[in-house]
Amino acid sequence: MKTSPIVRKKEVRKLLTELGAKIYDDINLGVFPEISMPSRSVKNIVYDKDLKQYVVGQNVVKRSSKNIKHIRPFTQTIWLAFFVEKLLREGKTSTLRDVYYSAQAFNIDFKDQAESDEIITDLEALLRKAREDYNVYPEERSAIYGDLTIEYTVPGHEGKRLNLVSHPDGYLIGPSLSTAELVKTSANVVFAVEKGGLFTRFVENKVHERYKALIVDTAGQPPRSTRYFLRRLNQELGLPIYVLTDADPYGMHIYMVIASGSANAAHLTELTVPTAKWIGVTATDIETYKLPYVKLKDEDIKRAYELKNDPRYKDATFQKELDMFIKKQKKAELEAFSKYSLDYIVDKYLPDKLKGIKEN
Amino acid sequence: MKTSPIVRKKEVRKLLTELGAKIYDDINLGVFPEISMPSRSVKNIVYDKDLKQYVVGQNVVKRSSKNIKHIRPFTQTIWLAFFVEKLLREGKTSTLRDVYYSAQAFNIDFKDQAESDEIITDLEALLRKAREDYNVYPEERSAIYGDLTIEYTVPGHEGKRLNLVSHPDGYLIGPSLSTAELVKTSANVVFAVEKGGLFTRFVENKVHERYKALIVDTAGQPPRSTRYFLRRLNQELGLPIYVLTDADPYGMHIYMVIASGSANAAHLTELTVPTAKWIGVTATDIETYKLPYVKLKDEDIKRAYELKNDPRYKDATFQKELDMFIKKQKKAELEAFSKYSLDYIVDKYLPDKLKGIKEN
Repeated sequence: MKTSPIVRKKEVRKLLTELGAKIYDDINLGVFPEISMPSRSVKNIVYDKDLKQYVVGQNVVKRSSKNIKHIRPFTQTIWLAFFVEKLLREGKTSTLRDVYYSAQAFNIDFKDQAESDEIITDLEALLRKAREDYNVYPEERSAIYGDLTIEYTVPGHEGKRLNLVSHPDGYLIGPSLSTAELVKTSANVVFAVEKGGLFTRFVENKVHERYKALIVDTAGQPPRSTRYFLRRLNQELGLPIYVLTDADPYGMHIYMVIASGSANAAHLTELTVPTAKWIGVTATDIETYKLPYVKLKDEDIKRAYELKNDPRYKDATFQKELDMFIKKQKKAELEAFSKYSLDYIVDKYLPDKLKGIKEN
Repeated sequence: MKTSPIVRKKEVRKLLTELGAKIYDDINLGVFPEISMPSRSVKNIVYDKDLKQYVVGQNVVKRSSKNIKHIRPFTQTIWLAFFVEKLLREGKTSTLRDVYYSAQAFNIDFKDQAESDEIITDLEALLRKAREDYNVYPEERSAIYGDLTIEYTVPGHEGKRLNLVSHPDGYLIGPSLSTAELVKTSANVVFAVEKGGLFTRFVENKVHERYKALIVDTAGQPPRSTRYFLRRLNQELGLPIYVLTDADPYGMHIYMVIASGSANAAHLTELTVPTAKWIGVTATDIETYKLPYVKLKDEDIKRAYELKNDPRYKDATFQKELDMFIKKQKKAELEAFSKYSLDYIVDKYLPDKLKGIKEN
């Protein structure tokens, strides 16, 4: 299960070196170099019921330097492989935008950032590794809090240990934390919450101590590096992941992307937590707890109908909740529990939901 | 200059208690209680050239329980004062949204969050204290990195010290860090940068060591708690604040709000750093460094003309740069320096700008 971040980086560098070696070999043999990768076209993306996520099928896309139409993306991809290998070697990270501008230093032409983003995703498909594995990180960051000891692997901090309980505002899940070894924890569970306000409430009300939990603020739909970190907490430390969102179809979908991934990332299989559980706030909870609500907008209802037809939502529980949203036309926010008191969500709602999980 | 966060909280609680006592006294004397606060209407907001910021004038707004039209906001304000005093007493924080929902627990009616936000700002004007002083925090958070030792004052962590150099992804500037004592630093300067990507570049290229700096990621226009934290770094530790943004009128304005505040917060005088300096990226820099640029949109140019008439921009340097934006019609991003190399902005641009400051 566990792959050390250092081992992981080495694997990626090995894949990149092999890619480079293959190009050289082809040239030495007098053959036009070519690369091939799984097709990411809609036709080649299928839902895998066992894995509970979208995956790419058998179709393969080839890019040959023999084909004049292929030369542009072929060159861009090989340059990118060179560039990220250098990042890994120097222990530096980059962003999608930085990669776009960096290309200009090498006279590699991208007409806009969309084109370089596309090539970055191609390299993901080619290597079957997420771009974070080759040090291209998002700008947005989530945060985590609780009793977790980590050990950095980034240059300048290698081997240093830190217990995340030392900063109650939460630790950013950036490049350093993403690549740290997870040394030990006393936690038995991870609560991933959608909002910073609730995250702070959980910290202040000592959810980490009372429920022996790590608390993650996903800050809305979590960046992929956070989804990957949740997966690590689940797989390496064996912690169950419980997701708590606003009561609306978009909130449910934050959970679903954590559990089952997205079609956009079908070429990656290491971003999901298939056993993650949505503990609310459900459409039913709005009624049970008599929460203040606002009326669903037309677009919310349209979204609920879309999700009903999405294979990831085929379970009866999800169908029931989607039907409830459509029928009652209500949505509610996590903060709505403050109607009773600021402590209510921690003191009453959370235990109710955990009891519900145990009984099922 | 320095006010300890603990002393500060005590002051606010004292102000709240005095407000409550005055209401009781009025009632005991058989007088209808009333409150008064500086008017926040446009007519009462003036630019103070010496303070280099907007301030409220002499006009006062009264709310009397004798006046039927005043009873609603009067009651809401008094409830809010009660609610935040409880927050302070219990060492808990809240958000604007939480306050809105919390009112329902007390049968205090707000027709929407806009109405409760308005009352929260009224209480700011009444007490002349920012809402963060009475524990109402924003959701968005910036981050900081560098050699700074802090000592927490929040419950459960009081007296614990932490050096912020221990987490290279950056520390979130949330309630705990905002209220921590600033114990000591080896830094001589603070660089506030607009973007997470550049923040990480600065950390990886050891700007904190090479320039003896603290690095702050403002994440766009910084939340007020971050502006207040920058002010504390400036006033309590005597550190100059240098702001680095994208080269466009919106980037300049990120700097200007840090330096001179906004008309919206004219009733508060402790959110600005009048000595903060904008070190770029300027319109002139786009030419000097031959940066990749995109054409300014009509709305960018409109914004530049607006800023030219804004009293905060009357200095010749700002006028010159605004004219340059209007003339050249170019804007560029911080990442544009990657055209030369990922290190260029740290190794070449930053020293150039610091040299420029010393020579002026």
